[in-house]
Amino acid sequence: MIELIQQRTPELLEANEKDLQQAPEYGLTEASIDRLRLTDTRLQGIVTALEEIIALPNPIGEIIGSNMRPNGLLVTQVRVPLGVVFFIYESRPNVTIDAAALCVKSGNAVILRGGKEAFHSNMALYGLLQQGLKDVGLPEQSVQLVETTDREAVGHFLKLGNLIDVTIPRGGKGLIERVAKDATMPVIKHFDGVCHVYLDQSADPELAVSITVNSKCQRPGVCNAAESLLVHADIAETILPMVTGALVEQGVELRCCPRSMELISGGQLATDADYATEYGAKIMSVKIVDTMDAAIQHIHQYGSGHTESIVTTNLAAAEKFTTEVDSAAVIVNASTRFNDGGEFGLGAEIGISTDKFHARGPCGLNELTSYKYVAHGAGQIRE
Amino acid sequence: MIELIQQRTPELLEANEKDLQQAPEYGLTEASIDRLRLTDTRLQGIVTALEEIIALPNPIGEIIGSNMRPNGLLVTQVRVPLGVVFFIYESRPNVTIDAAALCVKSGNAVILRGGKEAFHSNMALYGLLQQGLKDVGLPEQSVQLVETTDREAVGHFLKLGNLIDVTIPRGGKGLIERVAKDATMPVIKHFDGVCHVYLDQSADPELAVSITVNSKCQRPGVCNAAESLLVHADIAETILPMVTGALVEQGVELRCCPRSMELISGGQLATDADYATEYGAKIMSVKIVDTMDAAIQHIHQYGSGHTESIVTTNLAAAEKFTTEVDSAAVIVNASTRFNDGGEFGLGAEIGISTDKFHARGPCGLNELTSYKYVAHGAGQIRE
Repeated sequence: MIELIQQRTPELLEANEKDLQQAPEYGLTEASIDRLRLTDTRLQGIVTALEEIIALPNPIGEIIGSNMRPNGLLVTQVRVPLGVVFFIYESRPNVTIDAAALCVKSGNAVILRGGKEAFHSNMALYGLLQQGLKDVGLPEQSVQLVETTDREAVGHFLKLGNLIDVTIPRGGKGLIERVAKDATMPVIKHFDGVCHVYLDQSADPELAVSITVNSKCQRPGVCNAAESLLVHADIAETILPMVTGALVEQGVELRCCPRSMELISGGQLATDADYATEYGAKIMSVKIVDTMDAAIQHIHQYGSGHTESIVTTNLAAAEKFTTEVDSAAVIVNASTRFNDGGEFGLGAEIGISTDKFHARGPCGLNELTSYKYVAHGAGQIRE
Repeated sequence: MIELIQQRTPELLEANEKDLQQAPEYGLTEASIDRLRLTDTRLQGIVTALEEIIALPNPIGEIIGSNMRPNGLLVTQVRVPLGVVFFIYESRPNVTIDAAALCVKSGNAVILRGGKEAFHSNMALYGLLQQGLKDVGLPEQSVQLVETTDREAVGHFLKLGNLIDVTIPRGGKGLIERVAKDATMPVIKHFDGVCHVYLDQSADPELAVSITVNSKCQRPGVCNAAESLLVHADIAETILPMVTGALVEQGVELRCCPRSMELISGGQLATDADYATEYGAKIMSVKIVDTMDAAIQHIHQYGSGHTESIVTTNLAAAEKFTTEVDSAAVIVNASTRFNDGGEFGLGAEIGISTDKFHARGPCGLNELTSYKYVAHGAGQIRE
């Protein structure tokens, strides 16, 4: 694939150009059109991602547990592929290659359903994938792309619970809810990220500023960016103006609770809906809480179980927060932006699961696998 | 619970007596009535099972993986409960206590739905569970029993996907299919066990006999008992009469392929349906295959992905079989009956999953858990 991408770059850029020309018809924003665009640099990024996936250890066949029984039976748990993955995703063409590479490396077959806005780009990449599979002697059917933009197609695939082992939808909440409802196979959902930063009573002021600003502003459009800031009442007067000042300096718009309004200049009053909103933009809701319990309750009520960070210097506070907050990632004294397969050391990821079942948080190669028990005996029978 | 069971044995036996008296109304067989019966010995068995669960390590809080990142962020994967388990099971009253103990020990709340035939026994045990939870200061709501035998009740619970985290159905195929269809939450299915013993070309004759007989006869009614015997053509003439002779001696009825009919006395011709049937009784289907590939294809076509054993002295044959057979447990030179939580060293089990997703094979404490990522930093932000 790396060679093919390098050899056939002009062809890929030409197909991408067709998508870019059609983009206004689909009503894409400038930001969305930018995500759709392929360039030499971005194709180099796809190549780098492939090199990283190649460098990861092969997950299949790994012995993930073993137990030598008193009767001499050696019981091992061996990692195996899930089977057939149906992957539904948004319009960035690089995802087509990432997903195909992760699924092939984990021994799975994959059916790719990309966004209609990237259809020509995906078809061109798919052509190379077919060629690449053939060149290395793998079955071409192990990667398939849904060769239509027809919306009905997804529904047909979701009925094939006896043929498809798992569906992984990535995209808007509406899509994911529809998939979860209609799917006849297990689904790994990638829901929204209503992520929180909680500034504890004992928070270091400098860390409070840098972690909040980084969590919100470093890339506001992604799911692990923070949407809501919770501040312990005891430190609100001293720390909140510093933190919100730094946020406003970065162009962040604040939606505040009545108590924080009094300490902040330039914020507007938050509605209840604000606290449950994934803005995906430089907007942040702010709330003063009297206790950590109140912060945790707020997170469970309004959050999406994705990522929450606490800033604290107090050991007991860190322990309480990491134990009681039930989210895919709970982070102490670091940015929410670290909940990511690469940052957590899993390598490339197919998404970040907000489910608890099978896979939670970043889904890399291992999360695309199951296991079987393999036991070796020497004639053991049960009495 | 152990103390309460010992103190209040007469009460439990009395409640069980009511169930036994009603059993003929439900059309239970002698074998089913026997499974329903509580005795002093069986109550002692429940106590022993509780002692074993108590002795297992606490799964919650276990760090199941960690990664110190180059930036100093310590990323850990910490085991957490799944949440609320809805458990639907058949009529053996001991399962009520096993399931409650496993769920409480793994930090989950559980809603128990036992078979109607055991209703009085379960209500009596449930009373003790409530008392036991209260006595040790745990929330009484953490174990709940559906206090009705109304069939509609299950359907209502299956709709509560926002409140119940997983449903585990155990019982007939019809029940499990209905649950899988109607459930709005993930399901860990415990389907039937159409398990195979494959006698390879190089099988040791003595092991071939003892493993086949044990797999079929040691407890024919359970899911990991073998239902089908596959024999390589090269050894059929020598080994098959020995093996089937030993089976017939144990009272096993044989359903044979045309080729094996010629080598066996007393068998009857198998239909295609025979090969897909979980007899749960002393009946076994027999088929001669020309190659291991044919055996593996037969297993994937007719089997249920539960447990398959190979008898062989050939290393390459063992490797091929364990690699290519896609079942929850693949066993070399030992009885299929070992696919069991206790025998595999997991401790007590809530069932044996035939799913690939989340949990496969025996489901003990760990399979009732999820994980979250907990990361400890010192001010790390993303560049």
